[in-house]
Amino acid sequence: MKALFPHSGKATVIGLTGSPGAGKSTLVDQLAREYRKQEKTIGIIAVDPTSPYTGGAILGDRIRMQAHHADTGIYIRSMATRGFLGGLAPATADVATLLDAAGKEIVFVETVGVGQDEIDIVRLADVTVVILVPGMGDDIQTIKAGIMEIADIFIINKSDREGAERVEREIRAMQTLAIRRDDWTPPIVKTVASDGTGVPELVKAIASYRQYLKGKDLLLRKKVSNWRERLVEMLRKALLDRMIREQLDPEHLTQYAREIAEHQRDPYSLVEELVAGFGDKHV
Amino acid sequence: MKALFPHSGKATVIGLTGSPGAGKSTLVDQLAREYRKQEKTIGIIAVDPTSPYTGGAILGDRIRMQAHHADTGIYIRSMATRGFLGGLAPATADVATLLDAAGKEIVFVETVGVGQDEIDIVRLADVTVVILVPGMGDDIQTIKAGIMEIADIFIINKSDREGAERVEREIRAMQTLAIRRDDWTPPIVKTVASDGTGVPELVKAIASYRQYLKGKDLLLRKKVSNWRERLVEMLRKALLDRMIREQLDPEHLTQYAREIAEHQRDPYSLVEELVAGFGDKHV
Repeated sequence: MKALFPHSGKATVIGLTGSPGAGKSTLVDQLAREYRKQEKTIGIIAVDPTSPYTGGAILGDRIRMQAHHADTGIYIRSMATRGFLGGLAPATADVATLLDAAGKEIVFVETVGVGQDEIDIVRLADVTVVILVPGMGDDIQTIKAGIMEIADIFIINKSDREGAERVEREIRAMQTLAIRRDDWTPPIVKTVASDGTGVPELVKAIASYRQYLKGKDLLLRKKVSNWRERLVEMLRKALLDRMIREQLDPEHLTQYAREIAEHQRDPYSLVEELVAGFGDKHV
Repeated sequence: MKALFPHSGKATVIGLTGSPGAGKSTLVDQLAREYRKQEKTIGIIAVDPTSPYTGGAILGDRIRMQAHHADTGIYIRSMATRGFLGGLAPATADVATLLDAAGKEIVFVETVGVGQDEIDIVRLADVTVVILVPGMGDDIQTIKAGIMEIADIFIINKSDREGAERVEREIRAMQTLAIRRDDWTPPIVKTVASDGTGVPELVKAIASYRQYLKGKDLLLRKKVSNWRERLVEMLRKALLDRMIREQLDPEHLTQYAREIAEHQRDPYSLVEELVAGFGDKHV
C-alpha cells in the first residue's frame, strides 16, 4: 500500500448503497457502460452481505464478470462482509486506493444493506449515492433516517413502479430536516436501471456535485475529513496488531477471556492495565 | 463499569435481529410480558438505525415506555447507531452488563437491520434470535446468508401471512449448509407477535437452548469466545484513546489528514511510524 499510495488520488470514488433488491448491481453496471462511452476506465468493488463460508461473493463476482469479461477497461472485485480484522470499511477503502493507483478513473463501491458498516463504507467515497425504490413498505422512513446525512445524490430506481412520487415527496420532506455542512441539496434522480432510463442524468448529477465541491473549494475539505477517519481506523488496527505481536498472543487472550467469563477478573481493569503498560518493555 | 462488573453475570442476554418491519419491537414486548408472568425482571436495549441528529431513538423510547411505564420490573433503553467511538457493539455490550448488574434477569438486545454492526451486537448475546417474515421478496435469501451462522433460534413472525411455509423450507434448506461448532440445530418458531401467538413456544425454545448449552458444558465456552471478542474491541479502543491523549491530539490528526489528502504524505508509513514510536516517551 505504501508503494501504491503515491500513484493514487486521481480516481473519482462513487459509493452506492440501498436495501437489498433496490437494483444496485444493475445500476452500477449501467453506470459503468455510460462511463465506458466516455472512455473512462472503471473499477467496481461490490460489498456483499454474504458470509465467507457460503462463497456468495465469489459467485456474484463470476456472474457479473461474464457481462464485462471482454472489456479490459472494467475490473470487478467482490468482498464479503466478514473476516476483516479491523473492519470492512478500511479494507474496502484500501481496495479503492489500489484500483485508483492501478489507473481506474472511476471506482464504484456498492454495498448492500443499511447497516452502520455499509454507511461507513460509502461515506468515505467522493460521491455518495443512496438508492431507494417505491413500494418497500412503511419502514422506508426508518431506513432513510440513517442515511439522509450521507446521501449526496438520491436515486429512485424502478421509478416506473407505483409509488415513485410518494418516495420523492418523502425524501423532500426529510431534506428539510437535514443540515449539510456543504449546503448542497442532494438532487433526486429517477432511474429504471433495467433499461438504462435516467442513467445519463445520474452521470450528470454526479458531475454537477463534483463541480459544486470544486467551485466551493470543498473537495479538499471532504478528503481531509475522510482521511481523518481512515487514519483513526488504521491506527486502531495497527496499535492492536502491535500489542498482540509483542505482549498478548492469542493464547493469553483466551486465558484472560476465560478468567473474565468465570468472573475471576474484571475486564475493565484488565484493559486499563494492559494499555497502561503497553510499550513499557522499551524502558 | 469496574465497580459494576462483579455484580453482573447473572442475566440471560437475548439478542434479536431482523429486517425493518419484521416486528421486532412487538415481539420483544410480548416476550417481556411472558417473562413478567414468571416474575422475571426485564431490561430492553433497542438499537435503532436512526441518526443521533433526528432523535428518532429517543422518540421510540418514549412511545414504548408508555406501554410499560407502570411496571418497574421493565427498563427500556434505546441507542442510536451513530456516535460511538470504538463501535456500537462494545457500547451495547456495556449497557447489557450494566442492566445485568442492576439485577435485570432477562436482558433483550434488539437491533434493526442486517448489517455487520447489527450482527456483531446480537452475536455477543447468550441466545441469538433471528426474525424473518413471509413476503419480503426474493432477496430474503441474500439477507439470510449472512445471519445463518449467528441464529440460535429462528422466528417466522407474521406467520399467518402467505408464504410462511416457503420461508420455513428456505431456512431448512440453508441449515443443511451451515456448520455449527455446538451441533445445535436452531429450531424454527412461528409467531404472530401482534396477538401473542407462538410467544410461549419461543420462551420454551430459548430455555431449551440454554439447557442444551448447560448440558453439553458449552455455556462457558460461548461466554469465553464472546469475552475474547469484547476484550479485543475494548483494547482497540483503549489503545487509541491513550495514543490520542498522549501524543496525537485532534489538531495533529487533522494536520496529518490534510497532508495525506494533499498527497504530501503516505498514510501507511505514517501509521507505521506512529505505532512503532508509541510508548517511547516512557524511555
